[in-house]
Parts: sequence; structure tokens; C-alpha cells
Amino acid sequence: MNIGIIGGGAIGLLCASYLSQHHDITVLTRRKEQAEEIRTSGLKRTVKGETFRASVKARAGITGVFDLLIVTVKYHHLQEVLDGLSTLPRQRILFLQNGMAHLLDLENWDTSHSIYIGVVEHGAMKVSDHAVNHTGIGVIKWGAFHPEDTAAVRNALNETPAQFQMIYTDEWKKVLEEKLLVNVCINPLTALLHVKNGELIANPAYEYMMKCAFEEALSILGLAEKERLWSHVVSICKKTAANQSSMLQDIVKGRETERKAIVGYLLKKAQAQEITAPHLTFFNRSLEVLEKKQTKSFE
Amino acid sequence: MNIGIIGGGAIGLLCASYLSQHHDITVLTRRKEQAEEIRTSGLKRTVKGETFRASVKARAGITGVFDLLIVTVKYHHLQEVLDGLSTLPRQRILFLQNGMAHLLDLENWDTSHSIYIGVVEHGAMKVSDHAVNHTGIGVIKWGAFHPEDTAAVRNALNETPAQFQMIYTDEWKKVLEEKLLVNVCINPLTALLHVKNGELIANPAYEYMMKCAFEEALSILGLAEKERLWSHVVSICKKTAANQSSMLQDIVKGRETERKAIVGYLLKKAQAQEITAPHLTFFNRSLEVLEKKQTKSFE
Repeated sequence: MNIGIIGGGAIGLLCASYLSQHHDITVLTRRKEQAEEIRTSGLKRTVKGETFRASVKARAGITGVFDLLIVTVKYHHLQEVLDGLSTLPRQRILFLQNGMAHLLDLENWDTSHSIYIGVVEHGAMKVSDHAVNHTGIGVIKWGAFHPEDTAAVRNALNETPAQFQMIYTDEWKKVLEEKLLVNVCINPLTALLHVKNGELIANPAYEYMMKCAFEEALSILGLAEKERLWSHVVSICKKTAANQSSMLQDIVKGRETERKAIVGYLLKKAQAQEITAPHLTFFNRSLEVLEKKQTKSFE
Repeated sequence: MNIGIIGGGAIGLLCASYLSQHHDITVLTRRKEQAEEIRTSGLKRTVKGETFRASVKARAGITGVFDLLIVTVKYHHLQEVLDGLSTLPRQRILFLQNGMAHLLDLENWDTSHSIYIGVVEHGAMKVSDHAVNHTGIGVIKWGAFHPEDTAAVRNALNETPAQFQMIYTDEWKKVLEEKLLVNVCINPLTALLHVKNGELIANPAYEYMMKCAFEEALSILGLAEKERLWSHVVSICKKTAANQSSMLQDIVKGRETERKAIVGYLLKKAQAQEITAPHLTFFNRSLEVLEKKQTKSFE
């Protein structure tokens, strides 16, 4: 397939690198310099100490017609991407955002594009404009946002490398909810405490705070299976013990975090249902302070 | 009396300014520049929109013999002050530190000085090296650290201005504990959330987090009268609604906070008693992150 990948972050570079083994890839970046660097240097992916190189096309801006477009930008850049996509001819678009906030935007988006939703269960860290570390091998689970015949895309996406499987599921919303639950347990706390994922279960006080976030999120999302889900969260902490969460990486690098897509979305849903969420409210505000590094001014 | 005041921060300048109305005051600063500025410009105190000026002596370093020495430095500068005081002839010393951590240091201090402990219930904000805003009128409650005849000092300190009363009490330890309780409820949260004191009771989620800190501190300090003390904390939030707590001021100005003297002391006591304090542990670590602004490095 002829695949366009919007976004040159860790997930965008990871997708481009792996999918180029079976597909014709074009990376669509925001900055001209990054597109230029990807064209001239190619992509570099490091996984378990081995380095792989890939040649892909790249250009700046959202243009062209593809068999599939994959959107890998973070939630806070989604709106400008949607505006760009609105000007393109009808095509298939797979959204790989964290959280669930983008579902609300997509529901309100008046478009004739075919929309797919995916959940990324990989760990990745961008090293440079053309290099990415694949720090955790997982899968991408995806499905159709609106019911439709997905046979063609399913067949094409079955052709992916073993370390980068793309699995079709009708249950993508459930997958998304469980991912959001894991994210809201791990991301804000690791960012606020400046600790790696494993520390959250190594320190009983941190685990207690994580449990508080877990209980509130569970109730907001209306999820049952409390025990299985808590074991799941703990197992992810264990599996990724030595990793920095994406939110901690963002705070360390001084970038905007996915606070709004993760905690913000849950707080909005809590408010609509009149559920109180004091811990999530507290995390949200503390993260905002840490993000803005408001250490010199007072509003 | 001939009174020496060690420290030129908000509380040091406030004490010097008020006490100079009835006593002969010398401010002992760390920096030569500040002593010079106090000598040449005099002290300026603003309270309720009115400005008062005072002339006092000032010099850098801890030297001399006084009828009373008042130590106003923050806890994290106390050890160097104790070292300085150890070289001086025997005299009376009143310590005005926040928290209770200094009690442990004073117990272990091998000295022949007469030691007094005071609790400052004023709000103050340093404006410049010779100017202070008196933002909240309270009192200073003080007593003798070791039993002794305090009549002479009591008589002298009864001569203070109406807005700056110094009240003798045998119950200074109880006063200190209640002050610590108020501090641990208000200071860390306002610093983490970047909000003024009143916001803690205006936002139910923040009030909930404050209640969590309150319950843990109450149990660590072994205090009864839970309802009266909670009403006390809430009433202080109301009375000081428009104020920035001292810890928030420190974070905003990029200074070291009194985290160790307040939260750190309670966590040490909790550990000794095998009491779990997940919220205080969390606040302590988050404050540490905010203090160090570890946004560029990862240990």
C-alpha cells in the first residue's frame, strides 16, 4: 500500500520505519528541515541494541492521496491536522492518538473520509529528527470508527514485520479505555514525582496514590473487572519498570504534555456525570504548574 | 533591651522594625551589602497601606553580646547559625523557626546559652533588603526551651507595639505543633498547585487533598481535638485567603523551601512510629521536583 504518515515524532518514525518493509511510505512532517533530514539520512531505528535503516519519502505539510493515512501527532496538535485533512480528497485515515479525547473531536468532524482508530502498545523514544529507539515491543490494535467493510485494509496491514503487528479488533473502544486507564495511572505520577515507571510499585506511598487515581478513573469510565484491571496496571509498571513515561519525557524535555488528552478528558467526563475526582483534579493542576514552570510569575 | 536579630528575611526585618520602637536593635545579616543597605536606608515597613521607617544598627556576621538574640533564619540555614552562636559568650537566644525540626537540633546542641522558642503568627513578605510588608497581623508566642526564670525577658518583651505582641506561654510546644499542622496543610499544597491560600477551601478537590494531609499529620503528631483543629486550619485559610504562603513565595522566587522543616520532619516522625503517610510522601517528593526544577535532567 501507499501509506502516508502524518507526524515525525517517536510513533510516526516507528511506524514509518517498520511499515516501509512492506509498503511505500511517505512521512508528512510539520517542519521542512525534518522532511529534508529524513530524505537525505533515511530512518534509523534501534531495537534491542540492533540498528536498522530504512529509506522513505518525506515532505512537509498535509497533501496527497494515499491508500491509507496514519495520523501520529499528539492530541494537542490534532485540530490543525484535522483542518489540513479536511482539504484532501476522500481517503482512509487511521488515528493513533493517546487518550480518548480525540474521539469527541472525530465525532464532531463533518467529513467523508473513512476513519479508523488505533491503540499503540509500543514504547518508543525519539532520538533525533530521523532516529527512534523502539524501547518496548507491543502491537497496534485498530478498528473502524464507523462500521464499514475493512477487508482491504485488514489484508494489507496483515503484512507487517513480527515486531510491529497491527491487529484488527471490533473491541477497539474497550482497548482504548484500558490504555487510558493505564496512562492515567502511570503518566501523571511519574511526571510529578520524576521517577521511572517501576518506582510507582516499588514505593508503597506512590502505589497508594496510583491506586487513588485508578479508583477515580475506573468509576469515571464505568469499568468493571476492578481486580483484573489493577493487576494489568501493576504488570505494565513491572514490564516497563526502567522506562520513562511519555509524560515524564515531555516534562524533562520542556514539551507540552498529553495532560489534556488523558487527565483532562477524564475530568470532563467526571464533571458531566457529577463524579468527584479529587486526586485527578490535584494531579491535573500540579502537572499544569510543572508544565508551565510558573516559577517566576504568579497569575 | 539590647537586642540582636540574626537574619534579614521577612521575619527578621519585621522583628527589627517593630522592636526598635522600644529596644536597641542590631540586625546581623549574612551579606555585607544588606547590612550596608539597612544602615544607610533604614528599615521600611508597610502595614495596611501605611509606611513606617525605623533606624537600626546592622552588621554582617554573628558577633557581639546582647540582652537577647533572636534567630529568624530558615531551618536550612540554622546549622551554620548554631556554629556561629557556639563561639559567642553565654547569652539568651530566642529561636523563631517554622516547623519543629529545629527542636531536634537544639536538643542535640551542647551549649550553655539560655534557649527560648517562639512561634510567629504574622504574615510578612520581604520587598527589598531593607523593606518588608506586614501582610497579616498576629502575635509571637514564646517560652523557655529548658525551665528557667524568664521574668526579666518577659518584662522587657511586654514592651512591644500593639501590632507586634510577644506573648509568653508555657504551652509553646502545643502552639508549635498546631502551627506545624496548619503549615503542612497549607504550604505544600499552595506551592504545588500555585494557588493562594483561599483557593484550598474554595475548590472541593483541593480541600479534600488538604484533609488527607491533615489526617496524616494529626496522626503523626498524636493530636486529639480533630474537629477543633480542622476548623482552625480552615479559618486560617479564610483569614489569609488572598495571601501567598511562604512556600509558594519560595517556589515562585526560586528559593529553597522549608519542605524539610515541615513535611520532612513529619515524615521522619511517621517512619519512627511506623505510620504510613502516602499523601505527605507524595507532596514531599513532588515539592522536591518543583524545587529542583529538574526539567532538564533525569537522575
